[in-house]
Amino acid sequence: MYKKLEKNDLEFLSSLVLPGNALVGKEISEDYHKDELGTVKGIPDIVLKVETAEEISKIMKFANDNIIPVVVRGSGTGLVGACVPIHGGILLDTTKMNHILNLDDKNLVLEVEPGVLIMDIYEYVEKLGYFYAPDPGEKTATIGGNVATNAGGMRAVKYGVTRNWVVALEVVLPTGEITQFGRIVAKNSTGYSLKDLVIGSEGTLAIITKIYLKLAPLPEKSISLLVPFANADDAIKSVPIALQSKITPTAVEFFDRNTIGFAESFLGKKFPETSHNAYILLTFDGMSDAEIDEKYKQGAELFLDKLGADDVLIVDTQERKADVWSARGAFLEAIKASTTFMDECDVVVPRDKIAEYLNFTHELSKKYNVRVPSFGHAGDGNLHIYICKDNLNDETWNTLLPQIFDEMYEKADQVGGLVSGEHGIGYAKREYMIKMLGNTQVNIMRGIKKAFDPNNILNPGKVV
Amino acid sequence: MYKKLEKNDLEFLSSLVLPGNALVGKEISEDYHKDELGTVKGIPDIVLKVETAEEISKIMKFANDNIIPVVVRGSGTGLVGACVPIHGGILLDTTKMNHILNLDDKNLVLEVEPGVLIMDIYEYVEKLGYFYAPDPGEKTATIGGNVATNAGGMRAVKYGVTRNWVVALEVVLPTGEITQFGRIVAKNSTGYSLKDLVIGSEGTLAIITKIYLKLAPLPEKSISLLVPFANADDAIKSVPIALQSKITPTAVEFFDRNTIGFAESFLGKKFPETSHNAYILLTFDGMSDAEIDEKYKQGAELFLDKLGADDVLIVDTQERKADVWSARGAFLEAIKASTTFMDECDVVVPRDKIAEYLNFTHELSKKYNVRVPSFGHAGDGNLHIYICKDNLNDETWNTLLPQIFDEMYEKADQVGGLVSGEHGIGYAKREYMIKMLGNTQVNIMRGIKKAFDPNNILNPGKVV
Repeated sequence: MYKKLEKNDLEFLSSLVLPGNALVGKEISEDYHKDELGTVKGIPDIVLKVETAEEISKIMKFANDNIIPVVVRGSGTGLVGACVPIHGGILLDTTKMNHILNLDDKNLVLEVEPGVLIMDIYEYVEKLGYFYAPDPGEKTATIGGNVATNAGGMRAVKYGVTRNWVVALEVVLPTGEITQFGRIVAKNSTGYSLKDLVIGSEGTLAIITKIYLKLAPLPEKSISLLVPFANADDAIKSVPIALQSKITPTAVEFFDRNTIGFAESFLGKKFPETSHNAYILLTFDGMSDAEIDEKYKQGAELFLDKLGADDVLIVDTQERKADVWSARGAFLEAIKASTTFMDECDVVVPRDKIAEYLNFTHELSKKYNVRVPSFGHAGDGNLHIYICKDNLNDETWNTLLPQIFDEMYEKADQVGGLVSGEHGIGYAKREYMIKMLGNTQVNIMRGIKKAFDPNNILNPGKVV
Repeated sequence: MYKKLEKNDLEFLSSLVLPGNALVGKEISEDYHKDELGTVKGIPDIVLKVETAEEISKIMKFANDNIIPVVVRGSGTGLVGACVPIHGGILLDTTKMNHILNLDDKNLVLEVEPGVLIMDIYEYVEKLGYFYAPDPGEKTATIGGNVATNAGGMRAVKYGVTRNWVVALEVVLPTGEITQFGRIVAKNSTGYSLKDLVIGSEGTLAIITKIYLKLAPLPEKSISLLVPFANADDAIKSVPIALQSKITPTAVEFFDRNTIGFAESFLGKKFPETSHNAYILLTFDGMSDAEIDEKYKQGAELFLDKLGADDVLIVDTQERKADVWSARGAFLEAIKASTTFMDECDVVVPRDKIAEYLNFTHELSKKYNVRVPSFGHAGDGNLHIYICKDNLNDETWNTLLPQIFDEMYEKADQVGGLVSGEHGIGYAKREYMIKMLGNTQVNIMRGIKKAFDPNNILNPGKVV
């Protein structure tokens, strides 16, 4: 059904980008066949390193006229195969569109290209006294990928997710038309929010070519509290109560001693406190020292006096911050390094169901005799759970994995959760999403997909 | 093209609601023919006061099978005709669906029916120590109407708009199916955000039957500053600079002496300070007295020392708060009372274009010799501008009004603004939206409308 790309097609497409920006055949490295997790594979016929919306416009027009699949890719740090060209065709690599275009300090809006790394955004705005709040763990991800997946991150507890920080998007539609959804305004009730549809659509509706991000004044500083508990249940149950209080933490993370162990091995470095079974890590920020001090002191009191914490460690020196947060930042890589192969589950559940859900994964681990380490954003109910292949053979793994996933997503559904909190659906989670949301909703999504992309050329086989 | 409702249709529809909840013919009061502003008119064939999603489901199924228009209405406080049944048919009145169903204090989510008034939500949650942040001026509006228009309000500067506070929606689709978009979770990357599509869709995609609102801990208190300036330009130009600083106000409003005059006449009560031409009104809140005091003192200093304010009045006593905020709350009604008839413009522009835009409306007023009072949310660029008929005859009014609107929306487009910041598009602003956004975007919206409502029975003739 899709056009097979012939030599002259490849030549024409190559002519649409700058010399050296088109890769075909053996020039295409294996990195382009997969994303960070590597569970989904596909080989593009051509990789085009695009640099402008106008180039993308011409490519899309040709692809749409000839019915050629187009998949867009940033840093490839995704975990569900969203950027993998499973039907071949054209892979648009946006990593050269990595310019910060304008800081509009009157309206507190930053204009960036999609290939800018989020770490570069933080660096740029913070040195000017501004703040971009969403902070997904993977700092080498592009902002385009963050928007495409509606990435969350740790500060979502206080500041919301990427969706809340995107003011407007310039996109190229499948027809090649360049248009802008939303404008540099703080409120908008002007028709259906097409911007909010594109956010989280994982490259299936339009190609994002420019992003207008909301900024805020930079908080004065931040202080963290590391709060050890005798057991995971008590740790997790403290969180909803803490969030009802006026301490308004920026981030609330949960992890257990096992997970710390992986990070210690991986980093070759001791964690400051390992004598307890479970930990809550909170961060507080604010616009003045007085505000922050008041909050973290109230927080420490609350956890010690009323929430059953065994201790409270104040993480305020640069050194201690580095120790604690480098460990937290390394969890994914550390678990990955602890096994031969793994797959992941990114469910989000109501905050008060986290303990129940994690206990369920421990039961699953026993039932299938498979290692299932996890950690999570306790403040927002988003859990990162890893199923480790370890020394299982391929046959056993391929039999067990879908069974484990089936049970996990069924349980998520039961407790009122959803398939993905921040990683997206891509290819790997599509069937689970369809099962959980049901045909009615998925058919509406398909109708929406058709309104944008009637020929189904944009990232076909993904999401819906 | 729509079925004309016969006697037996009316009888069948009446049988789907409780006795006394169906109105036909002369039982239908004129209030149901229009909204608060009354510029758009239409007569429903039947008004159904619905009480449950199941009733709505049956009504929708019948309407969809028979191609009958269905318009949903809350308190009717809209200004653009969104709730007016311009094609007749069925008018669903949701004001009896006015129950607060559940407060989930573990997840900080309030479950309400769409007919609950927003003033009742504030009262309910605040006495329990929780906070629902969006605060549109019209407190007798229903939360269903607020969601349908993505209502904004004054606290949008710090807390965002209704969209940011809706976690999930139960809706009835045109087919009669009852489904839920979103769940009680704090992050979601599970497919296209259908919830965000329904928010702001003004009853054209689905009927909202249950709303899950995010809550936060209630701020400790709030303090306002009334800041007089010699002229409007200086007042408005101070705002972007104030928002770059760390004072993080909750609300930033602008008004001039004229507008205060209308409020004084309307309320029969003096405003605390009327010796200046222009005013900025700021509010500060926070989780502790110390935090709030620090912010408003820094704010006062900033405005006096660096932003050219003539004075700063602290509005902290109950009495003074009542004086200032009752005047601010009365502006719309007061301007309405000052004229024979009026129409409104709810443009939103980039914050740094407010002064330019207001100066333009003053020129327009002179050019057409029509009174054009205004006030606005200086913090978010959303302006409320009224065109007053005063003693113009109908012919002159009907000739001038479209010309004035044409110029206003063209200017909004020029400065990078949009048709509506918070009132919506409804019927009255449809042509202006289509002109501003262009066919490409409007056609995508029409495709989306078709995916939800292929028979075009839900609020036909509105938005797209």
